[in-house]
Amino acid sequence: MLECQRPDLQASSLSPSLTPEPMPHDPISFITHRVNYSETDQMGVAYHGRYVVWLDMARTEHLRRTGTTYRQLEERGLLLAVGDLRVRYRAPAKYDDLVRVRCWVRDLASRRITFGYAIEHAETGTLLATAETAMMALDRQFAVTRVPAEVRQLLAVCPDPVRLY
Amino acid sequence: MLECQRPDLQASSLSPSLTPEPMPHDPISFITHRVNYSETDQMGVAYHGRYVVWLDMARTEHLRRTGTTYRQLEERGLLLAVGDLRVRYRAPAKYDDLVRVRCWVRDLASRRITFGYAIEHAETGTLLATAETAMMALDRQFAVTRVPAEVRQLLAVCPDPVRLY
Amino acid sequence: MLECQRPDLQASSLSPSLTPEPMPHDPISFITHRVNYSETDQMGVAYHGRYVVWLDMARTEHLRRTGTTYRQLEERGLLLAVGDLRVRYRAPAKYDDLVRVRCWVRDLASRRITFGYAIEHAETGTLLATAETAMMALDRQFAVTRVPAEVRQLLAVCPDPVRLY
Amino acid sequence: MLECQRPDLQASSLSPSLTPEPMPHDPISFITHRVNYSETDQMGVAYHGRYVVWLDMARTEHLRRTGTTYRQLEERGLLLAVGDLRVRYRAPAKYDDLVRVRCWVRDLASRRITFGYAIEHAETGTLLATAETAMMALDRQFAVTRVPAEVRQLLAVCPDPVRLY
Repeated sequence: MLECQRPDLQASSLSPSLTPEPMPHDPISFITHRVNYSETDQMGVAYHGRYVVWLDMARTEHLRRTGTTYRQLEERGLLLAVGDLRVRYRAPAKYDDLVRVRCWVRDLASRRITFGYAIEHAETGTLLATAETAMMALDRQFAVTRVPAEVRQLLAVCPDPVRLY
Repeated sequence: MLECQRPDLQASSLSPSLTPEPMPHDPISFITHRVNYSETDQMGVAYHGRYVVWLDMARTEHLRRTGTTYRQLEERGLLLAVGDLRVRYRAPAKYDDLVRVRCWVRDLASRRITFGYAIEHAETGTLLATAETAMMALDRQFAVTRVPAEVRQLLAVCPDPVRLY
Repeated sequence: MLECQRPDLQASSLSPSLTPEPMPHDPISFITHRVNYSETDQMGVAYHGRYVVWLDMARTEHLRRTGTTYRQLEERGLLLAVGDLRVRYRAPAKYDDLVRVRCWVRDLASRRITFGYAIEHAETGTLLATAETAMMALDRQFAVTRVPAEVRQLLAVCPDPVRLY
Repeated sequence: MLECQRPDLQASSLSPSLTPEPMPHDPISFITHRVNYSETDQMGVAYHGRYVVWLDMARTEHLRRTGTTYRQLEERGLLLAVGDLRVRYRAPAKYDDLVRVRCWVRDLASRRITFGYAIEHAETGTLLATAETAMMALDRQFAVTRVPAEVRQLLAVCPDPVRLY
């Protein structure tokens, strides 16, 4: 059983407000993606480098579900740049397969947000890969900066639903 | 036999100057590129969409050889955006093949530069594809603008060395 | 008003069968796609080469809606390789934009299927690009072959819903 | 000072043969690559996912310098599939930058070859990223298999020339 805590919900339980709670989003979101021909390689499977793009797509949708969008963050001057990337490949995805990419926040530091990912075959549920990306918060001059409080409040840190490594 | 004319050389032949002519660059430049694994698809050949990137790489090097770089043009506020793209695929390129991409200026209009391309197998010379891209000159607000005279002067319009279509 | 004819429906109107007609698919299909970060370039728009992948994705879904899949065609030994590609770029797509790619069969020859495409901004309907790809039917040895009758029957040739060039 | 040992040289120093030693290749190879426009993103830098392709290109050239090629290995039925990927991003690469990717073998196990990488700005020498990929040896049915002795003999395990993490 997951025990994920959204910082804002945690705070409001200490000092309950009279205004209705926002409906908490699921701390683990997912996207589905159909493997297209450009993503295959001559081994007859999805090229391993493409998984990195799928992580990006999943992270973008995860942020959208929290109530902001990465596009808005960038427009306000907050860049999230990948500082560390790690992927464990477990089984190949094939052309025309539908894959599901689950995404959650693993860790939230003052200047860094770490996302976890599980890539699965959407129909069989087979685990294809696990991954994480540590994103550094940068300002427009690419200087490391703090993740603003209003962004931190949107993010629920969640224990890994699967073992990553 | 090619009869390519560089506007500046043409001008100087009408009114010959006493200063030494700059060494004219070859109006047809080329790059070589090794097909990498990420570029293959499960047909066992280079994915057709990758050729578009090779054209871009060849065009960039063509501009560099004329004495400017696309990076400089962009820094000065001139964008060259693809308005029309056309590729005829003739034979597949395979993984680890070395391909040669020849590039030249087909046509030069006040607001548009059209490049031609021939992609060949570097070792056998087999013609793999022919292509053209019409580039619109844009300013930083993406409004169509004139190709500056100093850029036009660098470019030699050249008849197609191979039939494109 | 479109007047698209599916060869099989046309045939069955000449010799009506007692079995119920399959529900004819719309001769123009579409996909939607969210422009992801990997697809942007430093001009701040979707890189022009990415459109070629979107065409591929749209074509794949178009075939799926006719009742077969490209995966099945390939497994049965029929490859569809791009012989000619043409794209006219009209307006830029931006990061996180939702684009709609409409796809239809423009022309059906004995050894070639030509698809047409219109890429639009999904929310505003702005036309971003028009395109076509002529696909050559190949066997496993990459020799040009005939499009099998049972594949031809699935495909409805349709006049262009927009002017391509 | 590096102390890299090529298994075959090590072996032959124990039982010297009369045949002339092959010229040992440098255990750290490198490629250079010009960042092209398709590789940039709207942050104005090379998209992080592209680095994965650069690692692949460097690994391919590393194998070529040892006396075999990955193409040959695949034709003989040996696939090397990425099992683990890890990249630490340290500084951005920009459009038209020339990057140098150094590659070496970090570890050689019976069924796994681990490569290390350092990506540097070719002109300034600035370290842009460090990375490693653990490659699983697979047969044509994607079953894990042993790295053949003749392949192992070609590979010199080398300590990391830079700290990876």
